[in-house]
Amino acid sequence: MAEKEVYYKDYLQLNKILNAQDLESDIAGVDAHDEMLFIITHQAYELWFKQVLYELNSIIDILSSPTVNDNSPALQVVVHRGHRINTILRLLVDQINVMETMSSLDFLDFRDLLRPASGFQSIQWKELEARLGLQYQDRHGKQYYVSQLHKEDVDKVKNTESSPSLITLLNVWLERMPYFEDSELWGEKIEADNIETHPFWSQYRAAYKDSLIEIEHANLDLFDKVLYGKEEEDSRRLSAKASRAALFIMLYRGYPLLHLPYQLLISLLETDELMSTWRTRHMNMVTRMIGTRVGTGNSSGRGYLKAAMDKHYIFTELAQLNGLLVARQSLPKLPNALGQSLGFAG
Amino acid sequence: MAEKEVYYKDYLQLNKILNAQDLESDIAGVDAHDEMLFIITHQAYELWFKQVLYELNSIIDILSSPTVNDNSPALQVVVHRGHRINTILRLLVDQINVMETMSSLDFLDFRDLLRPASGFQSIQWKELEARLGLQYQDRHGKQYYVSQLHKEDVDKVKNTESSPSLITLLNVWLERMPYFEDSELWGEKIEADNIETHPFWSQYRAAYKDSLIEIEHANLDLFDKVLYGKEEEDSRRLSAKASRAALFIMLYRGYPLLHLPYQLLISLLETDELMSTWRTRHMNMVTRMIGTRVGTGNSSGRGYLKAAMDKHYIFTELAQLNGLLVARQSLPKLPNALGQSLGFAG
Amino acid sequence: MAEKEVYYKDYLQLNKILNAQDLESDIAGVDAHDEMLFIITHQAYELWFKQVLYELNSIIDILSSPTVNDNSPALQVVVHRGHRINTILRLLVDQINVMETMSSLDFLDFRDLLRPASGFQSIQWKELEARLGLQYQDRHGKQYYVSQLHKEDVDKVKNTESSPSLITLLNVWLERMPYFEDSELWGEKIEADNIETHPFWSQYRAAYKDSLIEIEHANLDLFDKVLYGKEEEDSRRLSAKASRAALFIMLYRGYPLLHLPYQLLISLLETDELMSTWRTRHMNMVTRMIGTRVGTGNSSGRGYLKAAMDKHYIFTELAQLNGLLVARQSLPKLPNALGQSLGFAG
Amino acid sequence: MAEKEVYYKDYLQLNKILNAQDLESDIAGVDAHDEMLFIITHQAYELWFKQVLYELNSIIDILSSPTVNDNSPALQVVVHRGHRINTILRLLVDQINVMETMSSLDFLDFRDLLRPASGFQSIQWKELEARLGLQYQDRHGKQYYVSQLHKEDVDKVKNTESSPSLITLLNVWLERMPYFEDSELWGEKIEADNIETHPFWSQYRAAYKDSLIEIEHANLDLFDKVLYGKEEEDSRRLSAKASRAALFIMLYRGYPLLHLPYQLLISLLETDELMSTWRTRHMNMVTRMIGTRVGTGNSSGRGYLKAAMDKHYIFTELAQLNGLLVARQSLPKLPNALGQSLGFAG
Repeated sequence: MAEKEVYYKDYLQLNKILNAQDLESDIAGVDAHDEMLFIITHQAYELWFKQVLYELNSIIDILSSPTVNDNSPALQVVVHRGHRINTILRLLVDQINVMETMSSLDFLDFRDLLRPASGFQSIQWKELEARLGLQYQDRHGKQYYVSQLHKEDVDKVKNTESSPSLITLLNVWLERMPYFEDSELWGEKIEADNIETHPFWSQYRAAYKDSLIEIEHANLDLFDKVLYGKEEEDSRRLSAKASRAALFIMLYRGYPLLHLPYQLLISLLETDELMSTWRTRHMNMVTRMIGTRVGTGNSSGRGYLKAAMDKHYIFTELAQLNGLLVARQSLPKLPNALGQSLGFAG
Repeated sequence: MAEKEVYYKDYLQLNKILNAQDLESDIAGVDAHDEMLFIITHQAYELWFKQVLYELNSIIDILSSPTVNDNSPALQVVVHRGHRINTILRLLVDQINVMETMSSLDFLDFRDLLRPASGFQSIQWKELEARLGLQYQDRHGKQYYVSQLHKEDVDKVKNTESSPSLITLLNVWLERMPYFEDSELWGEKIEADNIETHPFWSQYRAAYKDSLIEIEHANLDLFDKVLYGKEEEDSRRLSAKASRAALFIMLYRGYPLLHLPYQLLISLLETDELMSTWRTRHMNMVTRMIGTRVGTGNSSGRGYLKAAMDKHYIFTELAQLNGLLVARQSLPKLPNALGQSLGFAG
Repeated sequence: MAEKEVYYKDYLQLNKILNAQDLESDIAGVDAHDEMLFIITHQAYELWFKQVLYELNSIIDILSSPTVNDNSPALQVVVHRGHRINTILRLLVDQINVMETMSSLDFLDFRDLLRPASGFQSIQWKELEARLGLQYQDRHGKQYYVSQLHKEDVDKVKNTESSPSLITLLNVWLERMPYFEDSELWGEKIEADNIETHPFWSQYRAAYKDSLIEIEHANLDLFDKVLYGKEEEDSRRLSAKASRAALFIMLYRGYPLLHLPYQLLISLLETDELMSTWRTRHMNMVTRMIGTRVGTGNSSGRGYLKAAMDKHYIFTELAQLNGLLVARQSLPKLPNALGQSLGFAG
Repeated sequence: MAEKEVYYKDYLQLNKILNAQDLESDIAGVDAHDEMLFIITHQAYELWFKQVLYELNSIIDILSSPTVNDNSPALQVVVHRGHRINTILRLLVDQINVMETMSSLDFLDFRDLLRPASGFQSIQWKELEARLGLQYQDRHGKQYYVSQLHKEDVDKVKNTESSPSLITLLNVWLERMPYFEDSELWGEKIEADNIETHPFWSQYRAAYKDSLIEIEHANLDLFDKVLYGKEEEDSRRLSAKASRAALFIMLYRGYPLLHLPYQLLISLLETDELMSTWRTRHMNMVTRMIGTRVGTGNSSGRGYLKAAMDKHYIFTELAQLNGLLVARQSLPKLPNALGQSLGFAG
């Protein structure tokens, strides 16, 4: 340690960070004060995207192992990092306030100099969507996206799309919940072909049916599709088995063993919601900035962002489960052995 | 003063405020801890809605006078209160974070006891929309809305809808901009029938045309529709004349006289944006809370909110103008006399 | 259900909530537009204080029971509600932004009409401080406080001060951590008189000593005072035994059984921090509003708030423990039996 | 344009920005996941500090010119950029939430590897304080600061300290308010030696005196010191003449010409407040992170930050003026000629 003393600006490599702002307007000899804000805001976004990806990748690593030991801190770490991602996303939403201090007219001072670059070319944001679980075929504007990016960047995103995503691993993890498979704990094993007659699930379905008011009866079909796997469409990201596990976690989260799994599910819903909020605010900002004109990257601006907002949700199927809950007082009581196995060794 | 000393809790009438929380679950003998949060959050919303309406009404009062004297503080006050409204709306968006600490399951503890009440029945929110300029025919779910409210409340909202709204008054105020009518200042008067040949506007249109890239050429039609009043649809809330004044303010805001008018336009765009953000976050919260089930008021929940989000913007036509700006360097220079009349007496 | 339909404005008792704003300036025939904002902001604060107290009281109830069953959801509920309190406090900090839209001059329009009322007279805020653990003798401005309040209100706060506070119950709960007493798990029982020779604690103290750099050596005295109870001052709110339990929880939070206890400790530190941030922002707002003049309640304004800011922390002793941690790699490994008892039954 | 197409990641120099994170823990072969967060958070801070300095320097440039033309957009620009600075500072306060997701124990994984670097070595933050007006002799911990920085960095800050700061220029700008010097507008010229007998100021002082309640009478001494320049201490940053101009702006901001000057003063108070909030939250975070241990740079951690919090305010003398206002109804009416000269040419 003696020979090497860490110095703040070297450690943070501020020579790189603070010398990475070259204004196109300076090069063109045009006066455009606000281009600095434009650059620095985007750089701050990219720094945070790097951090979000770093946390997300560490979560994916942990969930990639064949088993996640409940007695290790693994799941705590996953939940903690999920919360951190959400805290960062919340900051990214607020960061739009800063960008919004730039007016349309100030943007016009340098806007044309940036063509055809656009925020649409952020590879890290696309990687983030892909790592969460967005597949190429579900993207809005597929063609456009390929046409606007350098080949190496398209490849980078495609490569990410082809590696296991968080929602894929979540599905696997949910499917292997050990307390779900154990016939001793339940009296009777739960399997795809006995699900309709299994005491727990038939009792639960009956309670759910009772809870519906008349105009909600179509919800039973949803129930059967989602939890019993009837007419399962290929497009679903969570299997019926995984959906049952997730619902069970939501319902019985009071048991110690289910606390962190519940926190994980909640934090994923929050991630989706925050990304949606970010897209909405971004879209509104763009509308306010350029009205109906096309973006610098020739995208349809508001149109693109609006479509992406609707299609790029990842965990909609978890949100859907919230419509399939029954109130605590109507919940089937769990067998004793099962209840104990969900508690502490003490 | 001597005989009367103001005491905090009397002044704030805390006996009313803090004794207005009777839980339906208590009445029903059900344990539902989170109903208190539900009530208090909604009450806090209504308190703030009252404040927003109070500020909005004071703005409308000021803009209702036949002239707004530029040398009085009137416009400063309008802009200041507009900013306050936006500051409150920002808080209302953040307040959703508090409501989101209630989980679906916790909500189910008391949800059925509230039927058919729903946030949809907030009269103050509807009044707020109406005061800004939302008309009955533009509301999503008109029928539903009338059917869910007591007659007196429907009447209250309809009454508000029929009194002058902010956007109506804005249109009038923009149309009468004195520097716009004065033929001496411009060399030539600007009127509906000479707009295409008037030196300023023909020069501006040419500059705008030059600024468009090929795929943006359809924007010229928009230009003619919005600013020249060609094929003006009845559904527009701002006339061509008012739109020209608003655009002029945005372009030449650097002149002292236009500074506050510009701030006003910007703050209205921000109001729309904040209300949109609130609706988005509200919608996402409802989705997370009840999935695809109908709301307590039998609304379609998410469906209703999403449609309202798209249709209930008020100042879209102002936002549209941002797509009709040209960069500062291409702006027509104003005649000297005009420029001077937009400055201070000094 | 048929005979009774819940209606939004009745349920929320909006007749009370929205008719509780009588402006002193109206009574005095003075024009003071901003008094409405002043009233409504304070009412919103009081509504939220009610909610915070409601949650805090429910936490205190749970922690008041002789044992808190680890396999019940009790601790989950405590942590969840602690997070909710913090979410509300965060909103209360942001709410200052709204109040700050009132300028000094606007406040002067009605300020004199409010004497001698002042925010200082908020009983709920004082109850909140008392419920957390602030005692009368530790309050800044004791005399002043008694002199400004009606007797019934002084009694109410004193009554709260004399009932068990959260920090008192926290101390009891920490002291009875069962895994801490069990001699089988540790090989040797931990007691006040063997603490210096007990294998775990002597090993931990050695590791801590090793981690200090030269100028930090005085920290060892702190260690002995806090964790070994040497020269324990009466003024400490946590006993040495409770402090050891809290430190142990912080260090070994990776074990499932310690996860929620850790979350609880963290959330209490956050509560203190948020209340401190609120006091700072409140103080800065008052400074900006009235400069060095005395407050409406004749308090010294800024002076009072600043002193309170420093003295009204509750959980400083928990924060202090963060200076007594050693890095994970230097942590003593726990005996196997102990480790297992901190895990799930599986 | 044809030969050069701007590409997002090149434009933003992401090769530099995203390759500037080398973890000391990686070099040391230690596992410390959170060091990435630590680096990226600090880098994001430094990016924003660059932006704040960029805006601040542009404001200083504008105010450095011998006159600021009221009819140019100069003051609009100053106020707009001041608001932007505050918007960024608000983000920087929120950014602490992200850092706070790192626990003490996670920090200990790599903390020792960073010695003696510390946030204290941020040159940009020191430059920011110096540009606003903080002088070397007013800094807390002068000695320490010089000893911890490389000579080139000390020189850089000293160099900044010796160039005109914002508060110096503000003083000059306030002193030369033209409407203040003009004897025709006032009937009688205002000068240092007739200030006590000048109709306007003697009338104002009388109104102020009347407004004080008994225990506030010492405020009259403050009045005389600040506005009449009696016993003016050398340590004051604003002269009596400048203070009178600032007070006049606050009181008569309703006149068009004073609107932007008022906005400027308000935004400077907000800057001070936000920097104070940032310091408070930073201090609380450090306390929670390292308790009473010394910081990595051997600073006293919390102690240093707390002292800086109190001493590093810049615009306290503006805040002080808020205690010297009188209510609108008691304000002296301005002479007609003066009133007109503060209005628009129309």
